[in-house]
Amino acid sequence: MGSLIGPVRSWSRSAMAKARPRTASDQAGSTDEDAMRRALALARRGEGRTRPNPPVGALIVRQGEVIGEGWHHRAGGPHAEIEALKGVSPEQTDGATLYVTLEPCSTHGRTPPCTEAILRSGIARVVVSASDPNPKHRGRGLRLLQRQGVAVVRGVCRADGEALIAPFSKWIQTGRPYVTLKMGMSLDGRIGDRTGRSRWITGAVARQGVHDLRRRADAILVGLNTASADDPSLCWSRRAALNPYRIVLDARGELPLQAKVFSDGQAGHTIVAATSAIGADRKAAVEGLGARVWICGDGPRVDLDALLAACGREGFLHVLCEGGGELAAALVRQRCVDEVWFYVAPRFIGADGIPVLGGEGWLLDQTPTLCIKSVCQVGHDVLIRAVPEGVEANVYRLD
Amino acid sequence: MGSLIGPVRSWSRSAMAKARPRTASDQAGSTDEDAMRRALALARRGEGRTRPNPPVGALIVRQGEVIGEGWHHRAGGPHAEIEALKGVSPEQTDGATLYVTLEPCSTHGRTPPCTEAILRSGIARVVVSASDPNPKHRGRGLRLLQRQGVAVVRGVCRADGEALIAPFSKWIQTGRPYVTLKMGMSLDGRIGDRTGRSRWITGAVARQGVHDLRRRADAILVGLNTASADDPSLCWSRRAALNPYRIVLDARGELPLQAKVFSDGQAGHTIVAATSAIGADRKAAVEGLGARVWICGDGPRVDLDALLAACGREGFLHVLCEGGGELAAALVRQRCVDEVWFYVAPRFIGADGIPVLGGEGWLLDQTPTLCIKSVCQVGHDVLIRAVPEGVEANVYRLD
Repeated sequence: MGSLIGPVRSWSRSAMAKARPRTASDQAGSTDEDAMRRALALARRGEGRTRPNPPVGALIVRQGEVIGEGWHHRAGGPHAEIEALKGVSPEQTDGATLYVTLEPCSTHGRTPPCTEAILRSGIARVVVSASDPNPKHRGRGLRLLQRQGVAVVRGVCRADGEALIAPFSKWIQTGRPYVTLKMGMSLDGRIGDRTGRSRWITGAVARQGVHDLRRRADAILVGLNTASADDPSLCWSRRAALNPYRIVLDARGELPLQAKVFSDGQAGHTIVAATSAIGADRKAAVEGLGARVWICGDGPRVDLDALLAACGREGFLHVLCEGGGELAAALVRQRCVDEVWFYVAPRFIGADGIPVLGGEGWLLDQTPTLCIKSVCQVGHDVLIRAVPEGVEANVYRLD
Repeated sequence: MGSLIGPVRSWSRSAMAKARPRTASDQAGSTDEDAMRRALALARRGEGRTRPNPPVGALIVRQGEVIGEGWHHRAGGPHAEIEALKGVSPEQTDGATLYVTLEPCSTHGRTPPCTEAILRSGIARVVVSASDPNPKHRGRGLRLLQRQGVAVVRGVCRADGEALIAPFSKWIQTGRPYVTLKMGMSLDGRIGDRTGRSRWITGAVARQGVHDLRRRADAILVGLNTASADDPSLCWSRRAALNPYRIVLDARGELPLQAKVFSDGQAGHTIVAATSAIGADRKAAVEGLGARVWICGDGPRVDLDALLAACGREGFLHVLCEGGGELAAALVRQRCVDEVWFYVAPRFIGADGIPVLGGEGWLLDQTPTLCIKSVCQVGHDVLIRAVPEGVEANVYRLD
């Protein structure tokens, strides 16, 4: 996969022409922001595929022209900066500006340090969005470049750059994945009617949005009831390698072996989160289908912290929980949720429907509270995005 | 109360300067729209006080200058056009344009027809937003003016003009008030915790919004449980005359006589909606406090249709229901709701909380569906406005 997108492209004149006030503090003007937005868009192409690395995008611009573009495709493969430099000659890069959504690495990992390649290329200026959230590496690469005479600008489109790597930031600092809780419910907070039927509460546009969300996750987590009742495949692509893992909470191993997550040809991407209560025969049967069984605790219920720790060890940066209500409530209760996406359909199911949060609730003065991040109409439905208070993404942001 | 707001005001230059494309069909340009928006704002000052008349606003403009402004204050008082003409001499109005949010009346009611005053004033052009929803009068006033040589433009800001009089339109055509269902709930659809506590789920900004909504209603409807548990006064002003009526659904007359709706000095604005199950002593006791008792049916529950018919006879155009969940569900079930305002607080109460819609629900393929009209953040909360499908405000719109 080449990193240079087609022939040399001219940076759009209208974008260049915008005369936004420059702030002296970061020396970033409108063109820096425009270029960084492009780099962020490139980075997003890798979302959900780079674990345990963060998604990163890079852009090389010389005299207002984009001469190289790249993004990190997968762990072990070239970093975004190297992708952007591919096929660009040193004559072209000499004196050019590199835009990269995360500060370049300066250490030998599975690939050589990007700082070396940058210095070799003759790039004169490096513009960065987010700092490295790993305290061990933070700022090192940029200091190294500065010592070698490269101009460095930090924090351009910082909020977007940090949001993009929030899963990585949480994981690198806590060993646990970033958890997004996505629910599709009626306006009165029900995820199914009294018979358990839930297809479909939300509309087609919202469901397409869920596919995009799945694309960005490393694993999708569902409870046993959801996996049994809806029998979802939880995929967004026909290519197994592109799909996130499916994790079914199933303490005793009760999910029928005919379930789609075992039978859709992608069982290698299925994990049964059980406890020691699962029988050896059942475990063997599940494994015989190509799926994996994780033992998370010894109780009647799956130990969620043990499960998330196992996800972290597996290198899952971003776990998407899609219900049901009991699991959603348990994750909220144990403060495991980093972000909620509630798709609200304009319909009423009524009090005998299945509640979006099951189990025991909270007294009014002890309710978990959230902070709304955005609200928008998605087709006929409404999407409310929020972060739990005290679990705000900022926690994972280093100034 | 004078209708001319301060000295003659110059119409804002920037508003006048906007060069929006004129549409030949309605001959309305940007200045017509700007002026009509001002007339609509004036009309809204009368909302909730004009029953059984609709709120109406009027503006007189001559050579780009506003020379008169007015709105309908209360039934029996001068219409908006007359208010706008007050204190403006015929020399000033000669050749001027009148903007009025609803077509002028041409019949003798409690006041003489506005068309006569308009013709007398020498106004050369009349611009109207909504047509008269009363089929008996519709278009008559405008035809009369046209025959006398006055230029007439219809339908400027029509959607806003029709939305403003939607309660009147429903009432004049059906004899029933327009019902807005307003609920304040948690993100998981709960209006109270397991102990019944509900103060406060939503934030201060949302509650202020509810006051504005109350200001625009003729009556506020609550169930017995809500009236008992929260003991609300349901007022927005200390002046009884400005407040809407409070209607408590209380079939057998169980609400304690110490409740605020009886004891806050505005009992004359309280109506107990009971059935024949209410005892004569109790009825007399309630009436002794200055409140009224309406007998709506003979069953154990208040007959909602009988109640709304009684509201219609009373001239209530707009009834605001503020819960609780059982009443909300009953209104939805009987298709009495014209509009819902759900304030959604970013917190979770859980499955043991009180559901926003109580009682028996619906199967997924039979759920009442709505159409989202707007979604916005209100302080820390989200306001979702929607209209039930098949009960859309358009029903009350003619042509």
